Amino acid sequence: MHVPLILTDFLDRAVTLYGDKTAVIDGDRELTYQEVEKRVNRLSRGLRDSNIKKGDKVAYLTPNSLEMYEGFYGIYQTGAVMTSLNTRLRPDDYLFILNHSESQVLFVDAELYPLVEPVRDKLETVHTVIIQGGQAKECIDYEDWLMTFSDELFDREPLEENDIASLLYTSGTTGDPKGVLLSHRSNYLHALATMHHLRVSDRDTLLHVLPMFHVNGWGSPFYYTANGATQVMQRKVDPKQMLERIEKYQITIMHMAPTVLNMVLQEAQHTKSVFDHPLRIVVAGSAPPPAFIRKVEEELGWEFIHVYGMTEISPLVTTSQPRENTPVEDEGAFARLKAKTGYELIGTKVRVFDESGEEVPHDGKTIGEIAVRSNNVMEGYYKNPEATSATIRDGWLYTGDMAVIDEQGYMEIVDRKKDVIISGGENISSIEVEAALYDHPDIMEAAVIAVPHEKWGEVPHAVIVKRADADLTEEDIVAFASEKLARFKIPKSFSFADELPKTASGKIQKVVLRKEFWKGNEGKMIN
Amino acid sequence: MHVPLILTDFLDRAVTLYGDKTAVIDGDRELTYQEVEKRVNRLSRGLRDSNIKKGDKVAYLTPNSLEMYEGFYGIYQTGAVMTSLNTRLRPDDYLFILNHSESQVLFVDAELYPLVEPVRDKLETVHTVIIQGGQAKECIDYEDWLMTFSDELFDREPLEENDIASLLYTSGTTGDPKGVLLSHRSNYLHALATMHHLRVSDRDTLLHVLPMFHVNGWGSPFYYTANGATQVMQRKVDPKQMLERIEKYQITIMHMAPTVLNMVLQEAQHTKSVFDHPLRIVVAGSAPPPAFIRKVEEELGWEFIHVYGMTEISPLVTTSQPRENTPVEDEGAFARLKAKTGYELIGTKVRVFDESGEEVPHDGKTIGEIAVRSNNVMEGYYKNPEATSATIRDGWLYTGDMAVIDEQGYMEIVDRKKDVIISGGENISSIEVEAALYDHPDIMEAAVIAVPHEKWGEVPHAVIVKRADADLTEEDIVAFASEKLARFKIPKSFSFADELPKTASGKIQKVVLRKEFWKGNEGKMIN
Ligand SMILES: Nc1ncnc2c1ncn2[C@@H]1O[C@H](COP(=O)(O)OP(=O)(O)OP(=O)(O)O)[C@@H](O)[C@H]1O
Ligand SMILES: Nc1ncnc2c1ncn2[C@@H]1O[C@H](COP(=O)(O)OP(=O)(O)OP(=O)(O)O)[C@@H](O)[C@H]1O
Ligand SMILES: [Mg+2]
Ligand SMILES: [Mg+2]
Repeated sequence: MHVPLILTDFLDRAVTLYGDKTAVIDGDRELTYQEVEKRVNRLSRGLRDSNIKKGDKVAYLTPNSLEMYEGFYGIYQTGAVMTSLNTRLRPDDYLFILNHSESQVLFVDAELYPLVEPVRDKLETVHTVIIQGGQAKECIDYEDWLMTFSDELFDREPLEENDIASLLYTSGTTGDPKGVLLSHRSNYLHALATMHHLRVSDRDTLLHVLPMFHVNGWGSPFYYTANGATQVMQRKVDPKQMLERIEKYQITIMHMAPTVLNMVLQEAQHTKSVFDHPLRIVVAGSAPPPAFIRKVEEELGWEFIHVYGMTEISPLVTTSQPRENTPVEDEGAFARLKAKTGYELIGTKVRVFDESGEEVPHDGKTIGEIAVRSNNVMEGYYKNPEATSATIRDGWLYTGDMAVIDEQGYMEIVDRKKDVIISGGENISSIEVEAALYDHPDIMEAAVIAVPHEKWGEVPHAVIVKRADADLTEEDIVAFASEKLARFKIPKSFSFADELPKTASGKIQKVVLRKEFWKGNEGKMIN
Repeated sequence: MHVPLILTDFLDRAVTLYGDKTAVIDGDRELTYQEVEKRVNRLSRGLRDSNIKKGDKVAYLTPNSLEMYEGFYGIYQTGAVMTSLNTRLRPDDYLFILNHSESQVLFVDAELYPLVEPVRDKLETVHTVIIQGGQAKECIDYEDWLMTFSDELFDREPLEENDIASLLYTSGTTGDPKGVLLSHRSNYLHALATMHHLRVSDRDTLLHVLPMFHVNGWGSPFYYTANGATQVMQRKVDPKQMLERIEKYQITIMHMAPTVLNMVLQEAQHTKSVFDHPLRIVVAGSAPPPAFIRKVEEELGWEFIHVYGMTEISPLVTTSQPRENTPVEDEGAFARLKAKTGYELIGTKVRVFDESGEEVPHDGKTIGEIAVRSNNVMEGYYKNPEATSATIRDGWLYTGDMAVIDEQGYMEIVDRKKDVIISGGENISSIEVEAALYDHPDIMEAAVIAVPHEKWGEVPHAVIVKRADADLTEEDIVAFASEKLARFKIPKSFSFADELPKTASGKIQKVVLRKEFWKGNEGKMIN
């Protein structure tokens, strides 16, 4: 029997089996799954009333909240597509994304409305703006509006599993953000595999730290719901408040990027917090150093689960939980293993291919590109067939992440493809060079990029942010780096800056840095 | 991206990530996943050499063994269909199934070949018989044959996920065995959900007790492989040997029917065995009594996981692990909860419908039929469209199992639909009446069936197997039963027998018992 894999299944199960259980805690508000479903039904009716039909795009500019969570299911019942927006963009970015996505209704948090207000006149397709937690001119008040619709069971739009569930924009680390189309099937199968590897159960209480707008909170609105877990909303990164909530709600699991976890760790060290219940931390976004993993596991007693993914693949496809058959000598080796990118989740093939499409040897040093073959993979980039066919080739999605793979089959990302420097035919990992520079006590931030060179094609160049009133010269840095790096990897030139350009999620935009060095030379960039 | 859900994915993952790990232990033979894959490749080549093509049926009459396990993947690589046969049938049954399924190649264990030999002449489609672990006239020796083919990677038949993976025959408890067609998609999605609920991981070592021929060992050849677990083969039910192996291999999980577990429990009590490592027992087939569950959990320290399913649904669809939101007062209540049939797994809808297709109230007493809507559900009965459309109606599979559902949403099977006795408009659960009779010390076995009655339509009749040299009359039984049962539930007539007719898997065939009472009256049977 064919039953389409549709994401509303997950809410249905929670309502059937966990109807009376607390589903969402958002500040003072605590709602059961039954209560959430009623709001979801109202929302779906409201959307239909706003003329939203199957395939239409509905945008959300909302932090983690009850409103954001119910948005997913409210939209899916109508067959429409969730377009959740990063809350840390600029007005022009919103203008671009809202028009590009052809969003028709925009839900926006009152605090964030000022980011959209300046461009409202230029929105081409948005015909309705609904504001949450406040009021503004020409905006509908969400809560008032919601309550005008019945909470009875909603007559759902029939869907097939290949219908699109979400249109999410990438972080824009390597260029303009791209719109990623993900189907119900992709998200559903991602959920089934991920809940298994993360060992999610109805005993879990999740603190939603990772924003749900960001690659769908790594699918968290789906699989925690399917399992009937309680979900506590964390609107802002506020380490003090997070630690209080971990205690208060006996949080068992959280998802976050290493930078955020680092803030939490520091706060916990500062307040000498002690936790006496088990907690799992799921970490992705960039590679966490082994020393950091040990600190989290030893000082906080939290289990560190390192995963890897990208918007284009729903997003998670690997974990580095040491496998049963991997020899681990000691705690140090254990942490080094966990710091790797890891190996494929069930249901997904993840490989590292060299230029000719062959798998690289498992030697821990030959670099190739991570490629993914899986139902997790997007249907394509919205209105961008060129980018789609450059990324998905012969049934594999090419991630743009360069990695090595060790004897035990654990991958390890060495750099983004676009950031690798190809100098005299040698690959130089910008991350490796940066790591060496970061060890210098006077260097606060460093970004290493390729710049054009007559003889070598490209050579490494470092953009440095010095510590305030540090007295640091190019010569100092070269001397320091010589101790750590092979000659050809040492930056051949330097520039100093007050800060580095970053994406909303805090990733350094090397694409911006490179631009000025390549003006007129674009054709010669090797990557 | 659409990637068909094909079962060979699971072996691929195990070979990639657990290639050097022990995959299968069968007596003295221990093979890694890489070694198993090589044999699987040989087997696929052998099948192709025997002219097996996509969609062809390949039969196995084999106990749990390396040969049985590798059969699944060897067949799937060629796109053919696994038809695994119950090892406890009679020659005529094999004749029926082999011809009905149109099997072309038969793999048979040397010990079981005598069951097929008598009907070999009458096999209409089987052109090749390959014998495992022995020799016989006109049979190919498996191991010799296998070794003639290369173990190189096999060029797999391209498949879509809706292609059929297995054709399994039901137990024949309620009539003739029926051929159930299950697709790759059904088995794959069943595997993803089941591994999650059973918390399968690469730390597991499974003792394959439940026969893989029987509803595919509840999918065990698939999800233990996907997780890279070690799989120890148990050819026969031998409680002593099983206990030794649990210790020797540090078994962490087993699947079996309550009757088999009861034998293991008795042996363990007898030998005063103590186990100091955690072990989960997954139990289905019939409802285990709460007292039995407590014994297993308390005396053996094993975690009891009660699940429910049927051949037609891949097979598992519920579990009765007490949910986080279910109040449990004490150990007794805990065991009573676990004894219930439970609630739906993720990805499956399971409901109890009354005659008019409405859900029964959650009152623990209104009886309805369990229905399942899920991708687990079969494509249909092979060459039996009438039975298919009687079973699958309006997108639901009707299980023929009658159940009540309690306030907390836990289902509990009260009887098979065909076994319920409808007397004067009242439903009588044959299981309830039998349970009351079983309490009599002189009654060894009892089967309660409906017989025709002028006034009430049907009344309960009991077929009794007395303990040897017990002195027991109808009057004694009626007096005894009156203490425990409402008047209308007490059997109105009795017969005594030396034994009861049973299926190969030990279920009582009430259909056989009923026959003689209904001769000439068949049209009046209410069910
Ligand atoms: N565990 C990890 N280790 C190292 N890098 C990671 C990890 N998880 C994610 N990443 C990085 O994050 C990327 C995915 O991020 P995301 O989809 O949010 O957008 P982005 O790639 O940063 O932006 P854009 O695609 O617009 O340039 C991955 O391709 C990889 O480079
Ligand atoms: N946990 C359980 N509790 C009660 N009964 C169960 C349980 N698990 C399975 N069963 C019974 O076993 C049946 C499934 O068995 P199976 O598919 O092996 O064939 P069968 O139904 O016994 O035979 P046939 O369909 O040929 O009459 C279910 O329909 C149900 O009646
Ligand atoms: Mg990207
Ligand atoms: Mg049956």
